Amino acid sequence: MSKLFLVGMGPGDTDLVSPKATQVVNQCSDLVAYGLYLDLLGDICEGKIHHDLPLGEEIARARLALELAASGKTTALISSGDIGIYAMATLVFELLDQQIKGAENCPEWLDVEIEVVPGISAMQAGAAKAGAMLGHDFCTVSLSDLLTPWETIEKRIHSAGAGDFVVSFYNPVSKKRDWQLNTARDILLKYRPAETPVLIGRQLTREDENIELITLAELDAKNVDMFTLVMVGNSESQHIVYNDKQWVYTPRGYKKKL
Amino acid sequence: MSKLFLVGMGPGDTDLVSPKATQVVNQCSDLVAYGLYLDLLGDICEGKIHHDLPLGEEIARARLALELAASGKTTALISSGDIGIYAMATLVFELLDQQIKGAENCPEWLDVEIEVVPGISAMQAGAAKAGAMLGHDFCTVSLSDLLTPWETIEKRIHSAGAGDFVVSFYNPVSKKRDWQLNTARDILLKYRPAETPVLIGRQLTREDENIELITLAELDAKNVDMFTLVMVGNSESQHIVYNDKQWVYTPRGYKKKL
Repeated sequence: MSKLFLVGMGPGDTDLVSPKATQVVNQCSDLVAYGLYLDLLGDICEGKIHHDLPLGEEIARARLALELAASGKTTALISSGDIGIYAMATLVFELLDQQIKGAENCPEWLDVEIEVVPGISAMQAGAAKAGAMLGHDFCTVSLSDLLTPWETIEKRIHSAGAGDFVVSFYNPVSKKRDWQLNTARDILLKYRPAETPVLIGRQLTREDENIELITLAELDAKNVDMFTLVMVGNSESQHIVYNDKQWVYTPRGYKKKL
Repeated sequence: MSKLFLVGMGPGDTDLVSPKATQVVNQCSDLVAYGLYLDLLGDICEGKIHHDLPLGEEIARARLALELAASGKTTALISSGDIGIYAMATLVFELLDQQIKGAENCPEWLDVEIEVVPGISAMQAGAAKAGAMLGHDFCTVSLSDLLTPWETIEKRIHSAGAGDFVVSFYNPVSKKRDWQLNTARDILLKYRPAETPVLIGRQLTREDENIELITLAELDAKNVDMFTLVMVGNSESQHIVYNDKQWVYTPRGYKKKL
């Protein structure tokens, strides 16, 4: 049986890799991933054939994973975070869909048994480190306009503002792309106060992790890089400070019952 | 040092409990949780003092956890899924906030060291089992109007529709509450096609797991209970069927590059 696992390895800390993820990687002969993720995981991936394709080669990576599995090699396509959230899993299904529709010429892909293993996403790691910002309704918006028209992204930011959702921005900036985050900030400022708490989480759960709590008015793309999660509270999110501690949380509304 | 861990144990499958969660529970003398979750987890929780408070006693559970920790007992407040997502973590911070503001009389709470351990949420388990529905921008909406006014919930469903977000409904129904889900369906039908894929995931990753893929028009509260996750695709989500397999995924837009 040809088998392809699509595996999310969590934000970086090996203690947040699920036992399920470790088990399925152990069953595999071949691992397909952007090299940096494999480095982060260390021991778990030792003794396997690594197929390391650079960032930007996502389609080639998904094809390679399907081809390896179809050739009989038990294979894992690996991403950090949750492979189902802005990651490689959807691309594998998009390729299968194209094959079903006759737009690809790889019928052997359809014999591959696929299993998806979820992982802790960056927004969850960030929220946990800083408190409970995801305590009430939230949304995620990717600011990358490589595959999604900016008009669609802008419409979503307006909807996130109008609905007063906590917003996690994925892909907030890249080397070539920096204006979108400040535009997103300006849109949200039309819907919620300037002092709304914002969490800036860089390299979450990794050795050089850095977390800052600022306000929406202070948010600036120049302080954010591509390893950063940006999470904006809703109009009720609170930043609390006492002794040497600080937290942010979004209430569910228990206050009236306390 | 007084220590309180707020720990998410994932959707149910012990192989999705992070090593971090297992480690911190092992350090604790006292566990506070709704009993069903402890039963699901079995061995991990053995040999600890269990403080089992029923559903509906959330505030009492959060207070008890803070009190136990403040009294010097290393304590874990446990939930299924991610304790930061519609769960107990935010309530602990809400209580601390009330103490800071002088509305509680428990200064000892502020000496407790708190650490939050995230977990795999139901939407991630559901998306993974059925494909990659969370592959592009998504939101979560709780349909419980116990703590949130229905007008706010309705506004959020309209925003989710207008922004064309994939929508995960948490708390879709309860024993006393069943009309909200059908109203939510009717709102979303104003924004996206009747054939939009919907994932109905019951008891995800547990022994009696059941997953159905239907359309938005077919969604009906009478087929949903309080152990069910309901996830509605966006206008581009695809339901694919071949051989004996079926999947749902939300494309990121690679198609034009394939």
